[in-house]
Amino acid sequence: MVGKSEKYAPLTVETISERLGRIDALTARLGADTSQWQCAEVGDGNLNLVFIVSSPQGQLIIKQALPYVRLVGDSWPLPLKRAYFEYHALTRQAARAPGLVPEVYHFDEMQAIIVMEFFTPHVILRHKLMARQRVEGLADTLGQFLARTLFRGSDLSMDTARRKRDVALFADSVELNDITETLVFSDPYFDAERNHHTKGLESIVARLRSDIDLKVEAHHLKAKFANNAETMLHGDFHTGSVMVTENDTRVIDPEFVLYGPMGFDIGMLLGNFWMAYFAQPGHGDDAKYQAWILQTIAGVWAAFTTEFSQLWRNERTGILYEAALFEGQPLAAEQALTHKLAMIWEDTLGFAGVEMIRRTLSLAHIAENDTISDETLRATCEAKGLELGRQLVVNRARMGGISEVNDLAKQINKGATS
Amino acid sequence: MVGKSEKYAPLTVETISERLGRIDALTARLGADTSQWQCAEVGDGNLNLVFIVSSPQGQLIIKQALPYVRLVGDSWPLPLKRAYFEYHALTRQAARAPGLVPEVYHFDEMQAIIVMEFFTPHVILRHKLMARQRVEGLADTLGQFLARTLFRGSDLSMDTARRKRDVALFADSVELNDITETLVFSDPYFDAERNHHTKGLESIVARLRSDIDLKVEAHHLKAKFANNAETMLHGDFHTGSVMVTENDTRVIDPEFVLYGPMGFDIGMLLGNFWMAYFAQPGHGDDAKYQAWILQTIAGVWAAFTTEFSQLWRNERTGILYEAALFEGQPLAAEQALTHKLAMIWEDTLGFAGVEMIRRTLSLAHIAENDTISDETLRATCEAKGLELGRQLVVNRARMGGISEVNDLAKQINKGATS
Repeated sequence: MVGKSEKYAPLTVETISERLGRIDALTARLGADTSQWQCAEVGDGNLNLVFIVSSPQGQLIIKQALPYVRLVGDSWPLPLKRAYFEYHALTRQAARAPGLVPEVYHFDEMQAIIVMEFFTPHVILRHKLMARQRVEGLADTLGQFLARTLFRGSDLSMDTARRKRDVALFADSVELNDITETLVFSDPYFDAERNHHTKGLESIVARLRSDIDLKVEAHHLKAKFANNAETMLHGDFHTGSVMVTENDTRVIDPEFVLYGPMGFDIGMLLGNFWMAYFAQPGHGDDAKYQAWILQTIAGVWAAFTTEFSQLWRNERTGILYEAALFEGQPLAAEQALTHKLAMIWEDTLGFAGVEMIRRTLSLAHIAENDTISDETLRATCEAKGLELGRQLVVNRARMGGISEVNDLAKQINKGATS
Repeated sequence: MVGKSEKYAPLTVETISERLGRIDALTARLGADTSQWQCAEVGDGNLNLVFIVSSPQGQLIIKQALPYVRLVGDSWPLPLKRAYFEYHALTRQAARAPGLVPEVYHFDEMQAIIVMEFFTPHVILRHKLMARQRVEGLADTLGQFLARTLFRGSDLSMDTARRKRDVALFADSVELNDITETLVFSDPYFDAERNHHTKGLESIVARLRSDIDLKVEAHHLKAKFANNAETMLHGDFHTGSVMVTENDTRVIDPEFVLYGPMGFDIGMLLGNFWMAYFAQPGHGDDAKYQAWILQTIAGVWAAFTTEFSQLWRNERTGILYEAALFEGQPLAAEQALTHKLAMIWEDTLGFAGVEMIRRTLSLAHIAENDTISDETLRATCEAKGLELGRQLVVNRARMGGISEVNDLAKQINKGATS
């Protein structure tokens, strides 16, 4: 599965057959007759080349890192080794949450190429949300994926020597971590160069940037993100990293993988759902679909806690909260689980909040808002995300449960402001 | 300074001149005439060989790791690479807290040998405390050492790429971490094989081992220790790792170095001081000296917070709580500092508590108690440490300041029990 090759060069649709046409992992799926291969470059993300290669026999994805940020250009270099981190993340996720991430067929470290399973007819969840289409089983699958990857990548489950090796491995992903550390946790809170925001948000932006409590709490969250190497995170787990059909859900693109706090992946996902909820008036005002989004948010958290609790009871084989300690005291292990879920919950809300703020004020925004052409309406939708984000970051330790937060989202959606 | 050599072999007093007699770093300090060298093996620790080598010209220390735990024998293997971690810890501590740790003259990775500065006429602080002797400036030096090493090894100060490289470097110290994870955080809380305790403690031991709140909280602290890679810790910062004269204080033996939470080093130190306080009746009942120990504890915390606050205001050059964020809002940075100190305080109390419990119930006890020959008196002193330890672990978030904790220690010393 792992190949070696010559000096790095970016692929093109023209060179794919010539460069990769004799690799078993590809010919086994596409056939050896490369004249039958059809290639299309489809990368719509911010960073990489992505090709779909098809033949009468099958289809697959080729993802290749570029030595810079595609969205910005070669003025912003970014190391190729992110493909190496993505490869290691994908293989670990596949083992921990089987069937939910693309199978890796071939990896070439020098060329920063991952050849992998193509999910079809799946589309990006974010686009599904803009089209007001439901996905059966979405919340359960996402909640289970989160529980399985977060639990099984941690000292709750892993052999700690292996976990420490993985901490060391992923700690080398300095540049991608730096993107998150900077764009998510710092830039939104001052007048940083790469920031931009919709006209009409000036007063709320000024208010947030003078809000000491918000800034201090956002930085406590940054400290937790940067230092608390609790588990292997996806690292970029928003609705653009999820592919769906009407009844199937898969997870892609873990190149921002790092060891960090469990609440980060969950919070980023929930934050993106809440923003999608507030953006609905820009995509046809469908109260039932809005309610479905809130129901999905509640469902993700419920599925996460259910699955995490099962894993806690049945797979706690790591160095933390060891069974030997609680022999004959089953309630002690349950007490520890309750505390742990409460800590994850508090982190989840905080990270959801910073995600909502950075997706409105920092470099990368979300399509749900960007595609609202009426600037006044867009600003109104975005302001709601900022309001909820601020509440979550500052009051995350005192927010009640998921239905209380959804109620708050509904109040803000109706026009309540601070 | 760094040398290479052949296959590992333990040094003896007889072979030191022959094996190390032509190394510049040694001859520069001892002279080239090795017939003048005097060697003595003085290792009284649990793990290593330690030699003092003297000549008319000077003196130095040679510390060599053994491939097993010296205290236990070759039934407990322990990797030689701990010398490599100690070497890297010593050089970093020297840069971050100049003048307080032994200067490294020579390091041989293959032989697991560190040749370093000999502190003389210093003695181990633990012995000084048993002899009821004061050390001028002790609290200030220890508090400053803690603040400087903990602050400057973290993302508050370091370039984060360097910090991440160091996290990866020290994450490889699996076996020494395992000793702490097991002996400090787990063994004391169940009937583990290596445990032992003084006769007479049976009822309090039974009570602690059935104490669900204590066990759960101790494991929350273990999770923090194992996962929160906040700063480079000494890792074994008790009163046996401090060498003193009547007015000079130095720090040695950081082979348990790891990236972990700031409160761990501070807490282990304070826990050992509180145990020394409770052990005083076994070493001559001197109320004034006991008061001096409590005063020293308060002084360490005061010196730590003063120095940490200065560093926060003047050296906050890392990715956390960046100055750019708080421009024109100096009180925001002060608010973040207050929060940070409160978090460190809570961790400090928790780690002090687990240290007091493990030093009474787990494998390694403290000389202050072990040297009390009257078993009933020893059990009384140790029980007091267990009482305070339990309170600190379970109630660390609601303990007030250092004088409240010292007051609690005084009440326990007078005989208050739970």
